[in-house]
Amino acid sequence: MNYIDSVQNNRVKNFAKLKEKKYREEMKSFLVEGEHLIEEALKEHLVKILFTLHGTHPFTLDENIEVVQASEAVMAKLSSTSSAAEYIAVCKYMPHQLPKGKRIMVLDDVQDPGNVGTIIRSALSFGFSGVVLSKNGVDIYNEKLIRSTQGAIFHFPIIRCDITSKLVELKEDGYYIVGTSLQNGKPLSTIEEHEKMVLIVGNEGSGVSQEVLDLTDVNAFIEMVNFESLNVGVAAGIMMYKFRGNK
Amino acid sequence: MNYIDSVQNNRVKNFAKLKEKKYREEMKSFLVEGEHLIEEALKEHLVKILFTLHGTHPFTLDENIEVVQASEAVMAKLSSTSSAAEYIAVCKYMPHQLPKGKRIMVLDDVQDPGNVGTIIRSALSFGFSGVVLSKNGVDIYNEKLIRSTQGAIFHFPIIRCDITSKLVELKEDGYYIVGTSLQNGKPLSTIEEHEKMVLIVGNEGSGVSQEVLDLTDVNAFIEMVNFESLNVGVAAGIMMYKFRGNK
Repeated sequence: MNYIDSVQNNRVKNFAKLKEKKYREEMKSFLVEGEHLIEEALKEHLVKILFTLHGTHPFTLDENIEVVQASEAVMAKLSSTSSAAEYIAVCKYMPHQLPKGKRIMVLDDVQDPGNVGTIIRSALSFGFSGVVLSKNGVDIYNEKLIRSTQGAIFHFPIIRCDITSKLVELKEDGYYIVGTSLQNGKPLSTIEEHEKMVLIVGNEGSGVSQEVLDLTDVNAFIEMVNFESLNVGVAAGIMMYKFRGNK
Repeated sequence: MNYIDSVQNNRVKNFAKLKEKKYREEMKSFLVEGEHLIEEALKEHLVKILFTLHGTHPFTLDENIEVVQASEAVMAKLSSTSSAAEYIAVCKYMPHQLPKGKRIMVLDDVQDPGNVGTIIRSALSFGFSGVVLSKNGVDIYNEKLIRSTQGAIFHFPIIRCDITSKLVELKEDGYYIVGTSLQNGKPLSTIEEHEKMVLIVGNEGSGVSQEVLDLTDVNAFIEMVNFESLNVGVAAGIMMYKFRGNK
């Protein structure tokens, strides 16, 4: 097993760059930290290199995974959290294909990684076949996003693309497109279930963009007693529960 | 207008302690930061002292509110965020009474301030009359909690108490008590609406405690397609939407 002591090591300097989106894109790789998340990433064969602080680890690894022992300083340099990590894995990007299931969740410029992570957990729970993120929203490989999904993200199709052209495509494929809008929307409880559905929630501040609303079959609003804005993760959860798959 | 330059000033040292729960309890006061939240606190007459960085402010203040200009160092000492605040208010504790409305949300040891904040926003939105927090959960005046409610917390009855004795009391008052539990629970969609209802969600890791489940009339689970744990804020939101007030 290799041992890397110095934070000046070229590979370490390179991998530490994966904390930035720009370099993740370049290397098509990202970092995963902590036993539980690495365990989940291993199930999908995403791990390429495992850094371990003590030279030992609890994982069952494929032969092609490189294991490297690293000093505390190196682990700290690779880590995104303030406490020293015992295990950090360099992982390759996930395959980006959206299966043609019956329920698809679309996020139009949702910015908070915690909100996106929460929505991904709900989408998996409620039998959605995938989540589509707009290009201007949070990065899929954002470390906080991965943590907030508790690993669900590794087992679930998530793509990032131009959502207007994706919606046109889904519409042609026979999906019923449900946007969310407080203006000119219909109460959620009156929206009928369809065989194939796309649900859309939007940005924390400004909601779903007009460009996207122009492409929907119907827009829903969640009935409230007092006018308050709901958290977007809660709004998405309520809608996905109502239209959950395989009822 | 008084001007305080030094972080060694006794009042400043005293107020900075309000970042800790222990001292908030002692002084029955808490800090609120930023224009929007202070505006919301003012509506409920909670503000006692306003610190302003430039000596000016955009608020309409009652005569009894003291305004103090403070140096950047003082503002930084009072602030909970990394960026320098322009306005910080010292506020008095809110009145703690639970009105006898028809819908009450109970949180059994929910720990994350963001989750509690999200639930408070949903409770207000869905016409709940108040939220009850258990003693072991997060503090009502936690700065992150206040921020995540976006000020809703000031306009909404929230109490913190021993929830088992509170539940006994509510039951005697005729409330139908709905817990949440994956074991021995009934599907949420089969739970019938009652005139007066209490809904309970639990700790992020361990759910609702057995002690509390022993007091419920029924326990619900949210129907999922894949077994995943939902975020507690999402779970609470789905339940409150179903049983929202004044439909």
